[in-house]
Amino acid sequence: MTDTPTPVRSELADGREILFFPLPGNVSRPVQDVRPLGPRPQSAQSEIRYDVQTGDWVAIAAHRQDRTYKPPADQCPLCPSPQGDSSEVPAADYDVVVFENRFPSLSHAGADATTLPAGVLSAPGVGRCEVICFSSDHTTSFAELSHQQARLVVDVWRERTEALLGMSGVEQVFCFENRGEEIGVTLSHPHGQIYGYPYLTPRTTSMLRQARSFADEHDGANLFADLLAREIDAGVRIVATNEHCTAFVPFAARWPVEVHIYPNRQVHNLIELSDAELDSLTAIYLDVLERFDRMYPTALPYISALHQYRPDRGQELGYFHIELMSVRRSATKLKFLAGSESGMDAFVTDVTPEKMAARLKVLGS
Amino acid sequence: MTDTPTPVRSELADGREILFFPLPGNVSRPVQDVRPLGPRPQSAQSEIRYDVQTGDWVAIAAHRQDRTYKPPADQCPLCPSPQGDSSEVPAADYDVVVFENRFPSLSHAGADATTLPAGVLSAPGVGRCEVICFSSDHTTSFAELSHQQARLVVDVWRERTEALLGMSGVEQVFCFENRGEEIGVTLSHPHGQIYGYPYLTPRTTSMLRQARSFADEHDGANLFADLLAREIDAGVRIVATNEHCTAFVPFAARWPVEVHIYPNRQVHNLIELSDAELDSLTAIYLDVLERFDRMYPTALPYISALHQYRPDRGQELGYFHIELMSVRRSATKLKFLAGSESGMDAFVTDVTPEKMAARLKVLGS
Repeated sequence: MTDTPTPVRSELADGREILFFPLPGNVSRPVQDVRPLGPRPQSAQSEIRYDVQTGDWVAIAAHRQDRTYKPPADQCPLCPSPQGDSSEVPAADYDVVVFENRFPSLSHAGADATTLPAGVLSAPGVGRCEVICFSSDHTTSFAELSHQQARLVVDVWRERTEALLGMSGVEQVFCFENRGEEIGVTLSHPHGQIYGYPYLTPRTTSMLRQARSFADEHDGANLFADLLAREIDAGVRIVATNEHCTAFVPFAARWPVEVHIYPNRQVHNLIELSDAELDSLTAIYLDVLERFDRMYPTALPYISALHQYRPDRGQELGYFHIELMSVRRSATKLKFLAGSESGMDAFVTDVTPEKMAARLKVLGS
Repeated sequence: MTDTPTPVRSELADGREILFFPLPGNVSRPVQDVRPLGPRPQSAQSEIRYDVQTGDWVAIAAHRQDRTYKPPADQCPLCPSPQGDSSEVPAADYDVVVFENRFPSLSHAGADATTLPAGVLSAPGVGRCEVICFSSDHTTSFAELSHQQARLVVDVWRERTEALLGMSGVEQVFCFENRGEEIGVTLSHPHGQIYGYPYLTPRTTSMLRQARSFADEHDGANLFADLLAREIDAGVRIVATNEHCTAFVPFAARWPVEVHIYPNRQVHNLIELSDAELDSLTAIYLDVLERFDRMYPTALPYISALHQYRPDRGQELGYFHIELMSVRRSATKLKFLAGSESGMDAFVTDVTPEKMAARLKVLGS
């Protein structure tokens, strides 16, 4: 275990929490948020509904229809607001900052905890949705961060994972980044999101089910450790390696560009990683993102998804890793999720994983 | 059981099958396809790979990278080709035509049948991908078809379902339509697709698993019949009804626009529907599509997915229905599947199903 950074806490005009995480040697000095926001209405509470057809929960957040949509750069809500009147971040500057989403899909706005016994079809969408700004520089990107800055982001993900896991009603913590207008990102300022779901997500449920079957059939062996060992052994889909981590294109990649990053030691989440492992993870993550941006004349749109597990809730078989995926299938074309994918969850890709890996491999710096 | 239409069979220049389905009283007169296509290479055979993480199969069709992409209207490959030299349909005209996709995700190009015993991680992508042209009129849409023409399409879906179920290696038949550039449709001519998968798709697997659990817990009752009865009882999400069918927005809708159409009697697939039920299905399907196109100034992009089951393979609990979904969330905005959906399969929607149903309800003709 390494030290988690201690945030400077403040509050936005409508009562939302905001947390400033300074780099070593820097000091965060929030100012007062003077915007006339008023308190958040209870109607901001979303709802979750159980789909009996599939066994999945769906979140319905009707108040999100009015969320901020592609503001001009001089009205960016994620840039610093020195007078506390022009953005979500009331401060002259910041290194990394986290705050509750103004239009949350999940929140504690109208309800505290949720219990979801079998047979319940609907419940308040209790949980947490946070925005994390990776830098105060509006025009940079994660790939362009210094190692020190990127490591701070990783440390903040780690701190927030621990914090959200401690909140009432939160079952799973998901740190992710959506990057690029092509996938609907409405704010270009480099940022990610952190969700605290009140349920185990469908993907995590499937993956834990597979891991359980594998362990039952293989004397308790770990599915993901086995998968990683086989990828290292095969070699043909490896994109990058460093002291503690391995990045590869998965054997059954669904997306035109897809890379999974695993620490070489099985841990369940960021909290369990050592200081040296966190440094390795930061380095390989930056390395992969840099390769992404060298693929085409324009920056690659991508989704980054951190898969974290909690051994205290029977998820011992989970293996922390990051899944990166992009819809770009050529310089001018995107992959769309159409009938087969959206209707039947059956992915069809036109890129061979080995070719994708070979391409990414030669794009190293 | 009603009569299925008998197609006039012909062959394209590279050996692919093409089937003409005339309206009653019309005659199909294919001409020779004189394009210099040459036989299809065995390299057109795709591969399917098993994702051990999720338990899902993924199809990898590398030859599809070069598929036809937004041709000019005068080079439409789906318009009639009177001299047999200018499109995929060598005939002066046609009513409904079906042919094997030139760039198939699944085919018998290099392999015949596939067996997929547990533990197999990769296999040839055996199966069938067909294109179905709903009309020879390049500028029309499914919603604008006459009842008679739309019924012919339904009958052809039915005929192809039976035909594909009889092909070696086909485990599931999926008729669907992708409509709209917004979801990546590269040919604007009104058409759909029919896939014969060599595996049960992930969505169907989930739905049958849920149906099995429900039956076990409720004295053998059918999950989907129960769901339909509850929707009819609640009423608030019903969009349209007619003699034999019901259309409603599902309780846990994932998409900004989503409508499910069920026949009131449980059947497993189109083959089991009576003549009167097929007429009802055609009418309510046209009705829903017409409502879709009245929602916004421009035609609604949508995916239509026919869920069919085969009782001969242990799918007795399946209930044939059509799921329609759209990514359009306002006149100017689309829903994108970003981190939560693509990374965790956890859908977040900002439209309340009851409001969506009320809106669609008043858009009837």
